[in-house]
Amino acid sequence: MKPIRVAMLGCGTVGREVVRLLREQADELAARAGAPVELAGVAVRRPHKHADLGDLLTADAPGLVTRDDVDVVVEVIGGIEPARTLLLEALKAGKSVVTANKALLAEDGASLAVAADASGVDLYYEAAVAGAIPLLRPLRESLVGDRITRVAGIVNGTTNFILSAMAASGASYADALEEATRLGYAEADPSADVDGYDAASKAAILASLAFHTRVTAADVHCEGIRAVTAGDIAAASAMGCVIKLLAICERAPADASMPESVSARVHPAMIPATHPLAAVDGAFNAVFVEAEAAGQLMFYGQGAGGAPTASAVLGDLVAVARNRVLGGRGPRESAYASLPVRPMGTLRTRYHVSLEVVDRAGVLSTITGEFARHGVSIAAARQTGEGNGDGSARIVVVTHKAPEAALAATVDVLAGLDVVHGVHSVLRVEDLGRKGVAG
Amino acid sequence: MKPIRVAMLGCGTVGREVVRLLREQADELAARAGAPVELAGVAVRRPHKHADLGDLLTADAPGLVTRDDVDVVVEVIGGIEPARTLLLEALKAGKSVVTANKALLAEDGASLAVAADASGVDLYYEAAVAGAIPLLRPLRESLVGDRITRVAGIVNGTTNFILSAMAASGASYADALEEATRLGYAEADPSADVDGYDAASKAAILASLAFHTRVTAADVHCEGIRAVTAGDIAAASAMGCVIKLLAICERAPADASMPESVSARVHPAMIPATHPLAAVDGAFNAVFVEAEAAGQLMFYGQGAGGAPTASAVLGDLVAVARNRVLGGRGPRESAYASLPVRPMGTLRTRYHVSLEVVDRAGVLSTITGEFARHGVSIAAARQTGEGNGDGSARIVVVTHKAPEAALAATVDVLAGLDVVHGVHSVLRVEDLGRKGVAG
Repeated sequence: MKPIRVAMLGCGTVGREVVRLLREQADELAARAGAPVELAGVAVRRPHKHADLGDLLTADAPGLVTRDDVDVVVEVIGGIEPARTLLLEALKAGKSVVTANKALLAEDGASLAVAADASGVDLYYEAAVAGAIPLLRPLRESLVGDRITRVAGIVNGTTNFILSAMAASGASYADALEEATRLGYAEADPSADVDGYDAASKAAILASLAFHTRVTAADVHCEGIRAVTAGDIAAASAMGCVIKLLAICERAPADASMPESVSARVHPAMIPATHPLAAVDGAFNAVFVEAEAAGQLMFYGQGAGGAPTASAVLGDLVAVARNRVLGGRGPRESAYASLPVRPMGTLRTRYHVSLEVVDRAGVLSTITGEFARHGVSIAAARQTGEGNGDGSARIVVVTHKAPEAALAATVDVLAGLDVVHGVHSVLRVEDLGRKGVAG
Repeated sequence: MKPIRVAMLGCGTVGREVVRLLREQADELAARAGAPVELAGVAVRRPHKHADLGDLLTADAPGLVTRDDVDVVVEVIGGIEPARTLLLEALKAGKSVVTANKALLAEDGASLAVAADASGVDLYYEAAVAGAIPLLRPLRESLVGDRITRVAGIVNGTTNFILSAMAASGASYADALEEATRLGYAEADPSADVDGYDAASKAAILASLAFHTRVTAADVHCEGIRAVTAGDIAAASAMGCVIKLLAICERAPADASMPESVSARVHPAMIPATHPLAAVDGAFNAVFVEAEAAGQLMFYGQGAGGAPTASAVLGDLVAVARNRVLGGRGPRESAYASLPVRPMGTLRTRYHVSLEVVDRAGVLSTITGEFARHGVSIAAARQTGEGNGDGSARIVVVTHKAPEAALAATVDVLAGLDVVHGVHSVLRVEDLGRKGVAG
């Protein structure tokens, strides 16, 4: 059989593992693909660092991706440019593409999909979300006969490691981040992870696939974990909850204000300690999917790392190779639904609001009155720390489901009241379809 | 677009849901498949029971599956015959097949696969294992670039409901079975579930897909849960374990006695209470997959029921329809590896053995001596119930990993000893890659 020839862009942690597995499992991969799968070239910026790849190395990425002897381009460089230009060139030249580039897919997946369709080639990217966990193919294919209503989960291992460490030891955010950095779970500049951007990219990809529409990173409401304190973790624990950074993608039925729509958001949230996602610790990922007929499903595994991510890349690569051997292509993305994205302000969730107030009779009544005035119904309110000597007390309010905008307006007013020293924290409470959370 | 026309065989719980979803989601399914997906006919034994299907109904299944206007045959009747003959006729006539028939696939999947290949059509069966959980497609496609080493899980909801009920309430097997029957989780004749045959069929299908080889139901060592007692559940609890009916498929490297091989078995086993599978209660299913590069993955969801199973059938149906619209077919099964199946006697696991013995000095030493004589290394042995007045005591032995045959020979000898009143139970202990089980 004529081999399927692969050009790889980038050769970092994931790329090295792809090369290793392509070599070590060559016979098995050939049997599964229907033809040998061979490396045709590897484009890197600093060829001298990869001497063992010999003649395969090149610094000329644009030349490599359009070379006549290349069938498939595997992209593991990440970032928007030059990845976008290179992949668009490759697709235009009739090469199938396998990429792990979540940022690019979330920003401009539509351009790539259009280019792949124009050439009739495959565009696969299982590795872009939740590493080794087979998630995109199940969404795109296994559940294609069902109606997905929600995808929610832990899709960033760095932040889950930090939050798990804070919960386990009572450590501060800063100390937990330092430990994550020391152990290699966080990068020197942790912003993409801790500010939620990485998870937001993944949420955009998940929402697009799950709801057959187009959602970009800019559509995703994004809050990171920098503001989560040891006190928040303790407050969650007191409510029988844990705090996780969640990506939540939902389909919302039509209502008076909007036709059927979708939403996608990333933020820390309290979830019940009994929920399966609460038990997902350390750098692991897990995603819940709810569909009308299938009910609740969960997918769990390693969300990052060289070998797990390479497993996902190779699964796509063998699938693409097999499609080329058979002369076809796999199922395309479909964005036929073209659903609008619901603004964050209209979403309804529950909230845990913690305030420092003046320790004086009537303050609790003033505070709860502001919630009522904004139409935010309270499930529970309690005041602690009275008589602690400094004249201040702590009020914690847990609401029923309320529109984000109403809650935000309430908090704005509260922050300006004379009797409020400060708003300690505002955390969303998500039961993810489970019962039993206070409130 | 020319519609894709579907013949359905059987119209029970799953079939009714397939009909409902095909009708309610017709527009969405058409958008995803690239053409309308229409029912061409439904073959049932008693047409008068399904009057709402009108002209679609027929009692002539053989005529329906070869009709010129039929593109795809969906089979939800179950059992070996007439399903096998009908599906072979359909495949021979160039129809793609979607089936939920685990018994047929486990007994004679090879014949179906050969017939599908001969005609160049699809044979899909996601619904045959673990209901709505996307599991076969991830094994067949997402992990096709990886090397799966183990698939282990809870794949029968009825037995998991019974074992969960026994663990929660201390109920006997008989009482828990009665409750399961009353609630509709167990059939009037529960043998296929409680004797492990259903799980064994699924194990054969999982092992075949995971290891790219052919494993049939006859290759699967199968023990059910009828012999599990409330005492066993309590003994497991005392060890920090729970008892689950597991299907375990493993790849074994070559050793002195055999080349590389696979094994598949179904039996009750103690697993650590901290293992994610231990938390899978009631009628839910969950499957762990371990692969060399991907590491540990878990898939969780509803393993049975009309709507969840129909979700899996429809996912396959849309995929098959899309393949026909595009003029191709999906990835085939591959059985290129042709690995031998390892005999149960050569497998190595750990055991929890409970004996009633004569309450006399030296008995523990006699018992442990027999283990040693058979080369079975003991992790822990303890004696309880001395001085309980009836002259008997209980000895519990937990072994290190030992060959099944050596353990069986040990137990045979123990049962014949004068000092042994009886062998109370022999249970395997599986840590499934986790640490922390006693011994």
